[in-house]
Amino acid sequence: MSETQLPKPRLLDAINSPQDLRELDLKDLTVLAQEIRAEIVRVVTVNGGHLASSLGAVELIIALHHVFNTPYDQIVFDVGHQTYAHKILTGRAKDFNRIRQAGGISGFPRREESLYDVFSAGHSSTSISAAMGLATVRDLLGENRNVVAVIGDGALTGGMALEAINHAGGLQKNLLVILNDNRMSISPNVGAISQYLSLKMTSPELLSLREAVKRTLEKFLPHKGRRVIRRFQMAEEAMKGFLVSPNSFLACWGFKYLGPIDGHDLETLIKALRQVKGLNRPILLHVLTTKGKGYPPAERNPLAFHGLGRPSLFGHHGHHEIASHPKEVEVPEPPPPVLAPPKTYTEVFGRFLVKKAKALPSLVAITAAMSQGTGLDEFFRVYPTRAFDVGIAEQHAVTFAAGLAAGGLRPVVAIYSTFLQRAFDQLFHDVALANLPVIVAVDRAGLVGEDGPTHHGGLDLSFLRLLPNFTIMAPKDEGEMEAMLELAFNLDGPVAIRYPRGPVSGRSLADFKPLIKGQGEILKTGQDLTIIAIGQTVWPAYEAALILAKKHLFAEVINLRFIKPLDQELIIKSCEATRHVLTVEENSLTGGLYGAVSELLATRPLASPAVTLRGLGLTDQPVGQATQAQQRASLGLDIEGITTAAMRLFCP
Amino acid sequence: MSETQLPKPRLLDAINSPQDLRELDLKDLTVLAQEIRAEIVRVVTVNGGHLASSLGAVELIIALHHVFNTPYDQIVFDVGHQTYAHKILTGRAKDFNRIRQAGGISGFPRREESLYDVFSAGHSSTSISAAMGLATVRDLLGENRNVVAVIGDGALTGGMALEAINHAGGLQKNLLVILNDNRMSISPNVGAISQYLSLKMTSPELLSLREAVKRTLEKFLPHKGRRVIRRFQMAEEAMKGFLVSPNSFLACWGFKYLGPIDGHDLETLIKALRQVKGLNRPILLHVLTTKGKGYPPAERNPLAFHGLGRPSLFGHHGHHEIASHPKEVEVPEPPPPVLAPPKTYTEVFGRFLVKKAKALPSLVAITAAMSQGTGLDEFFRVYPTRAFDVGIAEQHAVTFAAGLAAGGLRPVVAIYSTFLQRAFDQLFHDVALANLPVIVAVDRAGLVGEDGPTHHGGLDLSFLRLLPNFTIMAPKDEGEMEAMLELAFNLDGPVAIRYPRGPVSGRSLADFKPLIKGQGEILKTGQDLTIIAIGQTVWPAYEAALILAKKHLFAEVINLRFIKPLDQELIIKSCEATRHVLTVEENSLTGGLYGAVSELLATRPLASPAVTLRGLGLTDQPVGQATQAQQRASLGLDIEGITTAAMRLFCP
Repeated sequence: MSETQLPKPRLLDAINSPQDLRELDLKDLTVLAQEIRAEIVRVVTVNGGHLASSLGAVELIIALHHVFNTPYDQIVFDVGHQTYAHKILTGRAKDFNRIRQAGGISGFPRREESLYDVFSAGHSSTSISAAMGLATVRDLLGENRNVVAVIGDGALTGGMALEAINHAGGLQKNLLVILNDNRMSISPNVGAISQYLSLKMTSPELLSLREAVKRTLEKFLPHKGRRVIRRFQMAEEAMKGFLVSPNSFLACWGFKYLGPIDGHDLETLIKALRQVKGLNRPILLHVLTTKGKGYPPAERNPLAFHGLGRPSLFGHHGHHEIASHPKEVEVPEPPPPVLAPPKTYTEVFGRFLVKKAKALPSLVAITAAMSQGTGLDEFFRVYPTRAFDVGIAEQHAVTFAAGLAAGGLRPVVAIYSTFLQRAFDQLFHDVALANLPVIVAVDRAGLVGEDGPTHHGGLDLSFLRLLPNFTIMAPKDEGEMEAMLELAFNLDGPVAIRYPRGPVSGRSLADFKPLIKGQGEILKTGQDLTIIAIGQTVWPAYEAALILAKKHLFAEVINLRFIKPLDQELIIKSCEATRHVLTVEENSLTGGLYGAVSELLATRPLASPAVTLRGLGLTDQPVGQATQAQQRASLGLDIEGITTAAMRLFCP
Repeated sequence: MSETQLPKPRLLDAINSPQDLRELDLKDLTVLAQEIRAEIVRVVTVNGGHLASSLGAVELIIALHHVFNTPYDQIVFDVGHQTYAHKILTGRAKDFNRIRQAGGISGFPRREESLYDVFSAGHSSTSISAAMGLATVRDLLGENRNVVAVIGDGALTGGMALEAINHAGGLQKNLLVILNDNRMSISPNVGAISQYLSLKMTSPELLSLREAVKRTLEKFLPHKGRRVIRRFQMAEEAMKGFLVSPNSFLACWGFKYLGPIDGHDLETLIKALRQVKGLNRPILLHVLTTKGKGYPPAERNPLAFHGLGRPSLFGHHGHHEIASHPKEVEVPEPPPPVLAPPKTYTEVFGRFLVKKAKALPSLVAITAAMSQGTGLDEFFRVYPTRAFDVGIAEQHAVTFAAGLAAGGLRPVVAIYSTFLQRAFDQLFHDVALANLPVIVAVDRAGLVGEDGPTHHGGLDLSFLRLLPNFTIMAPKDEGEMEAMLELAFNLDGPVAIRYPRGPVSGRSLADFKPLIKGQGEILKTGQDLTIIAIGQTVWPAYEAALILAKKHLFAEVINLRFIKPLDQELIIKSCEATRHVLTVEENSLTGGLYGAVSELLATRPLASPAVTLRGLGLTDQPVGQATQAQQRASLGLDIEGITTAAMRLFCP
C-alpha cells in the first residue's frame, strides 16, 4: 500500500472537541465548513434527517464554538433541526454515520448524549425560556458564562418564545438570542413578526414629521435652508432606519438588536459574536442564512428538503412532509421519482378536504406552519381565502378555530399529534367546554420513526379522552378515513381524528360505508380471545388473528374506531365471551385504549365472567430513534408481536 | 302604602337590553354607571366574585354597548373577570343577585347564557384569538359587523395573545383590541411589555441623535441657532413621544395604537370608540382604568379585592387568593378579621418553602402572575433574588423552571391546576422527557367552587399520569403536605404535588413521618370493602368508613398518597381481600385514580379473585358554579355521598 493511495486527510478528522476548533484560523475554518457540509450531505442523503436547516447553520455553529468557550458557555438550540454541525464538532463525528438510526445518536439535542447539549429539544420555541433558566442560574451562582439561545424565525412566532422575550427584556438579563433567519420556518413564514423582520414597514408618522421639519427649516432658513435640509434628510434617513429596523421592535421588548449579518460569512460571524460577547444585556443578533446552503437541490427547494426520509419503498418518511429523495452529494440532482409513492393518510385527508370544501362553503382549514406537512397545500392553492396558516402557534390555531366555529363556520384544524399537546388547554377550555364543532385532524399519531421520543404522537388518545363533548376516532385504512371525515362534518360538536404518519394500509374496504358515532365493528369473529385495536393497529391485529387461526387459536378482532364514545356493548359482549382480551394501540398504555377498556370492564357487576386483559402500546420508556417498523417491532405492535402477545394470554 | 315610600326608580331598572342604553344621553349614562357600580358592590360583597376588575370596567362596558350595535357587533371579553356590568346591561340584571351561586348565572361569559356572550372564557389570553375567528367569519360572509376583543394588561403577556396579535397584524384584519390597562394583572405586572406600557423607556439612540442635531444647528446657524434649536427640541419631543409610546411597539405588529385614554370618562370613551369604529384595520385602543374604581377599600388595595370569597368560616374563597372580606357598601371599610382563618394548603406550601429555602440555597420559586394566590408572597419578600414572577405565561414558567433545573437548581413552580393545562406540552417535552428535578406545586386541584367549569382542577391526575419520570402525589392533610414537600426535594426527578383550594383538613397527623416514594397507607383496616382515596378525599372517606362501621360494614381505607408510582401491592392485596372497591377522587373518572386502579386490576391473572370497582369523581358533565361543599355533595364526594356509594357496592 503506497502513501499516495491514502485519502487526503480532513481537518474535520482532527477535531475532537470545540477546543481544537479554536486553534484554527479563518482559512482553515472555511475549509472545515466545506468538509462538514459534505459530511452532512453524505450522511443525511442516506439516513434521512433535516438537511436544509442543518446545511444553513454550518458557519453559524462553527463561529459559535470558535468564539464561545463551550461547554462552559452554554448554547441552547431551538427545535434542534439545525444542530448536525454542532454534533459533529462536539465529539460525535464518528457517530454521525448513525444519526437518527436505532442505537445511534439522536437527530435532536439530547442532554444525555453530550455535555454540549445543554437542553434537550424537539418541539419549537423553547430555547429562550430554557436559556433564561440557565442565565438565571449563572447570575445566582455569580458565574461568568455566556448563555446563548439559537432560534429560527419560524419559532419566534410561538407564544412561548414571546413570553420568554418579555421576561428576559423586562429583567434586562445578560442573554444572547441568535435569530437564525432563513426567511421560512417550515412553510414560508406568516404574521406580523415575519413581515417586520423583512423590513417592509413604512411609517406615516415619520412622513408627516419630515414635512414638519422641512416647513420649519424653510421658514427659519430661507437661504441656507437647502444645505441644512440635506443634512437633516440624512439624519432623518438614519432615524427612519432606526425606526423601521427590527431594532425598535426589539427595543420595545428591552432587547438590543444587531444585524442582520450574513450567516455564511465566517469572518463577519466571528467578528459579530466577539462584539456581542459579554455585553451583559439582552441582545438579539439577526443572522441571515440560506436553507440548504451549499447543496443546490436543497437551496432551490428548501421546503422539500426540510426533512428527508430514509430511502425506502414509501418515500414519505420525513418528519415534515418531503417531496422526493435526492441522490448522493456527488450527483447533486435528485432523481425523478420512479414509482408513485403509496398514498399517505395525510394525502387522503388533504384530498378529502378539497373535495368536501366544494360542497360545504362553510368549511375552512387551519394549520400552524405545516400546510404541506398536514397535506393542506392543495387546499391552500384551491381555497386561499378559506385556508389559514397562523405560523408556529398551536394554541392560537385551536382557539382561532373555536372563534370560527362560534361564528358558524366548520373549521378543520390540522396539527401533528405531538404538537397538539401545546394546545391541550385550548382544546379543553375553548372547544370542548363550549361544545363547538371544531374538527381536529391529528396527524402523525403514534410512532413517527427517526425523530424519536419528542415527536411520537403517543399521548393523544389519552389526553383527548379527557375532553368533554369530543368524539374521538381513528381509521384503520383509507376508506375508513374518508368515512370518518364525512361523519365528522355530520356531527354537531368537537371531533378529533387521529391517523399515523406514512402510507395507508395495504388492505382497505373498497366500499365506503357511512359510520355511526360510537359504533365499532367486528372484523373477524372468534371464540378464544378478543383483540381490540384502533387505527393503524387494526390490520396488523387482523393479520395476527389469521396466523393465530392456523395455530387453532381463534381471535375475535374488534376495530373499535371510536375511543370516545366507547362501544361499550360490543366490547363487553366479546370480552365476556372470550374472557381473554388484548388491546393494541399506538398510544400510551396509560389512559388510552387499554385505559378505556380497563375502566369499562371494571364497571361490570361482581358476578360477571372474569376477564384477563393485556395491552400492547407505549410505556413510560422512551422509544428511541429507529424506523417506524423497528419501533413497532420493539413494542410488539407488529403482526409478530401481536401474535406472540395473544398466545401469552394463555401461557403467561 | 303611600307613593312617597317607593324607592327612587333607577335608570338601571329600565334597561332590558343594550338597545335601551343607546337612547340615554351622557348625563344619564353617568348616573347609570353609578347605579351599576352600586349594584355590583351590593351583590359581590354578599356573593363573592371579582369586585375590583368589574368595578374598573363599568364605564368601558357602558360605552361599548352604547357605541356598538351589540349583539350584531361582537365583543369578546378576555378571562371575563370584568364582565359584570356587561351581564347587568344585557338582560341579566334580575339574575345578577344569584351570580356565582348554584343555579344562578356564571361569573364568566358563557355562550349558553346569552347571545351577548359571544365566546366563553375563564382562562386568560384567549380573546384576540377568538375575535380573530369571529372577524374572519365576518369577512368570509361579507358582513359588516365590528368585532372587539377586550383584554387586560396582564393577559397581554400570555403567549397565546401575542400569537394572535402576530396573526391579526400580519393579515391587517379589521379588529379592535381594547387594552383595559389597570396596571396590574393579578399581581403587579412583570416583563418588558408591562414596562413598555408604563412608558418608562428611554432611548440612547435618541439621545445621540439629539446631540447630532444640536451640533449641526450650531454649526450652520450660529446666530439663529437657539430659536431653531428650541423648535427642534419640540419636534424631538414629539418624535420621542412617538418613539417611546406603545404606538411604535404595536406598529411593529401591524397594529395602530390609540390612547391612552381615561377609562372612567364616559365622554372620552364614547368619542374614542366612535372614532375607531369602522376604521377597518387592526387597532389597539389603550384604556387606563382603576381597579376597584368607586369603592374606596378596593381602590386602595385592589389585589386583596381581586377575587372576593363568600362570607364564610374560611374567608379564603376567592378565585385567586384574597385577604379579608369587606363590609357592605354602606360601610365601605373592611372589618379587621375577627378570627384567624383556618390554615390553607396554599399557606402550608408557602410557609414550608420559606423555611426550606433557608436550608437549601439551590431552592428557587416560580409563579405565573400568582405570587399571592399560590402562597409565595412571603417567599418573594424573604428571597427576592430567588423568586421569579414571569407574568401570565405558564408555558414559559415551566420551561424556565426546566432551564433552572438543567443548571443545577431546585426550582419549584406553583401553578393552579386549571392553568397548568396550558403547560402540558412543556411538562412533557422539557421536564419529563429530560427527567429534570422540577417540583410542580399544583394548587386549586379538584373542585374550586364559584368560578365553575373553566376553573376546576379536574384533570391534573389524568394528564400528569401520562408524563414519564414524574412522581405524583396528593396530601390528605397538613402533616402529609409537609412530608410530601420534604420528599419532593429528596427525589432526583420531576415531582408534582396536587392540593385543593381551601383550608387544610380538620384532622391531621400530629407527628411528621417521612414518606417513601410510591408507598400508600392503610388508614383503617376492614374486610368488607376497600375505599381508595387520595388527597382531599381521604379524610371524608375515613369518616364515611366510621359511619359504615356503625352499619356493620367494615371498610378498609387506603390513603394512596401517590398516583404515580402506584402502590400496586397495597391496592391488589386489599382489593382481592374485600373484592368490593370504591375509588374517591376530586379528578376526572377518566384516566385518574379510578383509571389507574382499573388498569392495575385488569393486569391480574384470570384466576384472580373477581373484584367489583366503582368510582366517585368528576364526569364529562360540567360542574357548575356553587360552593365547594355543594359541588362535592353533587358528585357524592362528601361523607354522605361516599357512605351511600359504598353501600351501593352491595345493593346495586
